[in-house]
Amino acid sequence: MTQDLQDIYDVMIIGGGPAGLTAALYASRSKLMTVILDKSPTAGALAYSNKIENYPGLTSPVSGIELLDTMKRQAIGFGAEYRAMQVIGMNLSGDIKEVFTMDKTYSGKTIIIATGSMGRKPSIKGEGEFLGKGVSYCAICDAAFFRNKTVCIIGNSEEAVKEAGVLARFAETVYLISPAKKLKDEDHPGLKIPNIKLLLGYTVFSIEGKEVVEKIRMHDYDQKEIELKLSGVFVYLHGNRPITDFLAGTLETGEDGCIPVNCMMETSLPGVFAAGDVTCTEIRQVVVAASQGCIAALAAEKYLYKRTRYRTDWAK
Amino acid sequence: MTQDLQDIYDVMIIGGGPAGLTAALYASRSKLMTVILDKSPTAGALAYSNKIENYPGLTSPVSGIELLDTMKRQAIGFGAEYRAMQVIGMNLSGDIKEVFTMDKTYSGKTIIIATGSMGRKPSIKGEGEFLGKGVSYCAICDAAFFRNKTVCIIGNSEEAVKEAGVLARFAETVYLISPAKKLKDEDHPGLKIPNIKLLLGYTVFSIEGKEVVEKIRMHDYDQKEIELKLSGVFVYLHGNRPITDFLAGTLETGEDGCIPVNCMMETSLPGVFAAGDVTCTEIRQVVVAASQGCIAALAAEKYLYKRTRYRTDWAK
Repeated sequence: MTQDLQDIYDVMIIGGGPAGLTAALYASRSKLMTVILDKSPTAGALAYSNKIENYPGLTSPVSGIELLDTMKRQAIGFGAEYRAMQVIGMNLSGDIKEVFTMDKTYSGKTIIIATGSMGRKPSIKGEGEFLGKGVSYCAICDAAFFRNKTVCIIGNSEEAVKEAGVLARFAETVYLISPAKKLKDEDHPGLKIPNIKLLLGYTVFSIEGKEVVEKIRMHDYDQKEIELKLSGVFVYLHGNRPITDFLAGTLETGEDGCIPVNCMMETSLPGVFAAGDVTCTEIRQVVVAASQGCIAALAAEKYLYKRTRYRTDWAK
Repeated sequence: MTQDLQDIYDVMIIGGGPAGLTAALYASRSKLMTVILDKSPTAGALAYSNKIENYPGLTSPVSGIELLDTMKRQAIGFGAEYRAMQVIGMNLSGDIKEVFTMDKTYSGKTIIIATGSMGRKPSIKGEGEFLGKGVSYCAICDAAFFRNKTVCIIGNSEEAVKEAGVLARFAETVYLISPAKKLKDEDHPGLKIPNIKLLLGYTVFSIEGKEVVEKIRMHDYDQKEIELKLSGVFVYLHGNRPITDFLAGTLETGEDGCIPVNCMMETSLPGVFAAGDVTCTEIRQVVVAASQGCIAALAAEKYLYKRTRYRTDWAK
């Protein structure tokens, strides 16, 4: 495939969440020719959030979609191109990287992967419908919305038990519901917190309500049906999965598919950066993803201009 | 000094910039008893910025003071205490850390140092007066405001030459003005950029204008006075200095006084964290400082609850 030199971007960004859009803002404001390839403006973890109040600088709570729209307007305002386009593969081996979509191959000198992590497909009836309306995948993000209410966590992993501890500081009662009759860590200190109640061997099959979650229905180990009134359902059944299927082995990934980066967001390949929830971090906060996008863009700029300003001598 | 148990904070935050306020937002939203000790709400690097447009999520450009006020309202809204109070020393050795102010000793289980870096005292007539009105200490932050204008960089360090390169992508003409007759790196490729003009052996003694910078006055090596019309003055004479004088050796610092941290914002002392421009980072951006504040607060929470959720196995 031949291309004009004009078609070679300085920075190609895969993903239109807070990491990708902030990377685009910084890259385009630095006059780098920048394109954002985004599967869908409504598909990411932030897009599913009904209410964000912990992003610093918000004068009032906003929806995830509103915050994303603002960031996108900023990036486009500084000159970034936005393309709603699904990436199906890439070639990262040469100096010029290639990104394949159904329509077209994009070529560029650097690439920032910011595809996030929300592979989990809703598996419980009502889970998708009430996402952001009582259903959540992140207790740290959303616990404060459930002050003095009744909530449940579905899952039996160590993470589920720990997140129950976070929720217990806010909610009146936290039901920890595990389909298995045994938790993975039965001696976890979190299980001693008085307002955490265990329901082992129960399978939630439906989340119900009018506008927001009002109750769940589940089966016990004898298949008897039980109804439980509550306001929040935190699902920790499979955990989030970084979205890196399109890499198909072109870049080293961690156990669960996450991309390892150093503090400058550099991956194992020169000119290839990653930012946000797709990286091997467990702090999934909007401001952290945005910051990583900023750093990735500055690192890409440095790579492009062979600037050596940024230190790499991180302590420890 | 004796204290009631109630007087022991979970998290004490030194500094009320984006790092400190975001740390306070996250800590207080997690129901940790949190206090912010801030020398002055108008003293930090962000407070001096007249116009911020590259912070992700802004619907329109705001002043640094406005952005800080919003962040402060969020933190206080979630329960953090704010005290305008200068810290004069601290004791970080025990499990309970102490922070000394003129009035009172504050005690807490963890401490987050977020005092920023803006030690540089204006030394040129008009430098302080026009800070944020044409005078800047950060080309990456402010270059885009000087599109097709004439600007100067004062300084002869390698950093000054590199920043001239950043400015040259926006400004029509960039004067690199050095009091010394020789640059520290005379072969730097940045010096070959056509719209960078060198003025070696010139000393700027006055920055002048009505509302904003309009001209500078300088002496050449024969003490002849020269006037130069321009819109922007970027001062790289001594660089920014992290504000850590109050530490007085209680915590390990780097060469220029910066605090080394790992990716979780942990310092060399358990329970002591640092975030923002006071750390040994050269990326001085609001969103990065805010993210570091978020991470420091979550790390402090983890330390307090002995949670082990966050990974520390950072690649490279």
